[in-house]
Amino acid sequence: MKNTIGSRLSLNDFIDQISQGNAIVLAQAITLAESKLDEDRILAEQLIETLLPRTGNSIRVGITGVPGVGKSTFIEAFGKYLTSLSKKIAILTIDPSSAKTKGSILGDKTRMEELSRDPLAFIRPSAAGLALGGVADHTREAILLCEAAGYEIIIIETVGVGQSETAVRKMVDFFLLLMLGGAGDELQGIKKGIMEMADAMVITKADGDNIKRANQACSDFQYAFHLFSESESKWQPTVITSSALEKRGINETWKLVLQYVEHTKSNGYFDAQREQQNLIWFRDTIQQLLIQQLSTSDKIKLKVDNLEKQIMNKTILPSRAAKEIVTDFLTS
Amino acid sequence: MKNTIGSRLSLNDFIDQISQGNAIVLAQAITLAESKLDEDRILAEQLIETLLPRTGNSIRVGITGVPGVGKSTFIEAFGKYLTSLSKKIAILTIDPSSAKTKGSILGDKTRMEELSRDPLAFIRPSAAGLALGGVADHTREAILLCEAAGYEIIIIETVGVGQSETAVRKMVDFFLLLMLGGAGDELQGIKKGIMEMADAMVITKADGDNIKRANQACSDFQYAFHLFSESESKWQPTVITSSALEKRGINETWKLVLQYVEHTKSNGYFDAQREQQNLIWFRDTIQQLLIQQLSTSDKIKLKVDNLEKQIMNKTILPSRAAKEIVTDFLTS
Repeated sequence: MKNTIGSRLSLNDFIDQISQGNAIVLAQAITLAESKLDEDRILAEQLIETLLPRTGNSIRVGITGVPGVGKSTFIEAFGKYLTSLSKKIAILTIDPSSAKTKGSILGDKTRMEELSRDPLAFIRPSAAGLALGGVADHTREAILLCEAAGYEIIIIETVGVGQSETAVRKMVDFFLLLMLGGAGDELQGIKKGIMEMADAMVITKADGDNIKRANQACSDFQYAFHLFSESESKWQPTVITSSALEKRGINETWKLVLQYVEHTKSNGYFDAQREQQNLIWFRDTIQQLLIQQLSTSDKIKLKVDNLEKQIMNKTILPSRAAKEIVTDFLTS
Repeated sequence: MKNTIGSRLSLNDFIDQISQGNAIVLAQAITLAESKLDEDRILAEQLIETLLPRTGNSIRVGITGVPGVGKSTFIEAFGKYLTSLSKKIAILTIDPSSAKTKGSILGDKTRMEELSRDPLAFIRPSAAGLALGGVADHTREAILLCEAAGYEIIIIETVGVGQSETAVRKMVDFFLLLMLGGAGDELQGIKKGIMEMADAMVITKADGDNIKRANQACSDFQYAFHLFSESESKWQPTVITSSALEKRGINETWKLVLQYVEHTKSNGYFDAQREQQNLIWFRDTIQQLLIQQLSTSDKIKLKVDNLEKQIMNKTILPSRAAKEIVTDFLTS
């Protein structure tokens, strides 16, 4: 089936159907963009490039939190709230750990059962686990395709323990961190640096016996945010509590997103960040492609291995070793 | 004079004199490493590579803090304490803002007056302001040269507001952040993410009317550190107060450094981090050289400018624009 996707629909059919919001064709287009076949990639790029003028009109929200924080439950409640406001929402999940199994699609549909049956919601795991830049490129392209299909809020979900958060921060307008109250630092395992990327934090499972701890965590983290310096957006990160079970903190989260959008649109940061993110996408891809090209040569790879050994043995200066590699690469 | 440095001393003279701890020749060698002349660079690389087996025996300490935090005063007090223990210390300062003026050398000597007259101390501003990777490369080479000359503690000082902190974090064993008590977040202007890189924080100017605020800041920041997850080193960052005026918190800082070294040497992190840093030096330099090579072509630069405009106008996909650049670069 993968091989025939490209041939089943023409470029024009893809454009028409996606512009009309056809979710099945949207899913096929994302698969096309993720394909490793050159002809699929070329078609996907033509498609997305043609659709570019129709993109950019959504609010892009990154949501992260470690396993156990109640991410799916929160996102389902949040998503259902948004569709109840007649918003079309797309949820793209990045889970590097489950990248190898094809089961993640089913998994996502199961864990967001109600939402997956909602005609206003589009749920799609993003193919991760690819080499350098793979995740970021495909997810960015998926965002654009969803926007062209008329989705108004795009949620990018990550696991909060790996490298993907930094990549996701570079492609969203608003970054939300989910945390448990009183679970202790080590237990939470949120990677360093992630907290300082957040525009807001939601303390989840603030119900029953947890309420007191959740409130304590809320004020603790709010205080910690104040210790950080003001970010470029001039937005002060806010912490709230939520219970997906009791449907509390859900509309408050949406209000926060709207406040942020209003704040950053009025001071120009919203558009500036989008422009910057596009340039970063461009520059990051250049770097990744160069390194990728360099890694395709077996001769260079062998030399890198040898030089790394020499570096460990203190027989070569790392900077000089780097020069050797680059000279070899550019003259070969 | 710059042109003749290379010819005045032979490679063997350089090696001998540096191995004997000759500070004047050490300073010349660092100048050689910073030179833009190819023949100087080649000699410098030969020199450092020959000296490599003599390197690595110091404790490398990064110290950062915004202007006004009392960095020079703290470093002078800290340095004098270390030389009073008969330790040989080297202080390499990176100040991107003053890179253009040659005045920074004099400036440094003036602001650390006592220390600059101390025969056990070597003070040297690192030439910053160069293109990609410049700062990092030269500072790393300066560290190695200082180690070969027998310096036991190498302090790398940065301003705490720019990009250099991330670069410095990649080349030191221990990263220390200086902060003022009660100065308010915005006033301090420490860039986001720097706090999470710190292994320790010293609240400066904890004297006179400031003591209460300093103590408050101390416990606030200690609490904030607890909110972060454990780092790879399994070291819990510690906050202390200090008064350079009253010479308090100086030996405590040194104790912290020693505790950290003991802790990370016993769990293997110290050596692992050093190895990792050398590999990062290698890989970062490869990337930087590739980008540098790419930027030397006027044709490519023009094309980059054009593509960036097209990206802004939403007429090209950033990832496809990147492919065009890389293809052009590698086939030209």
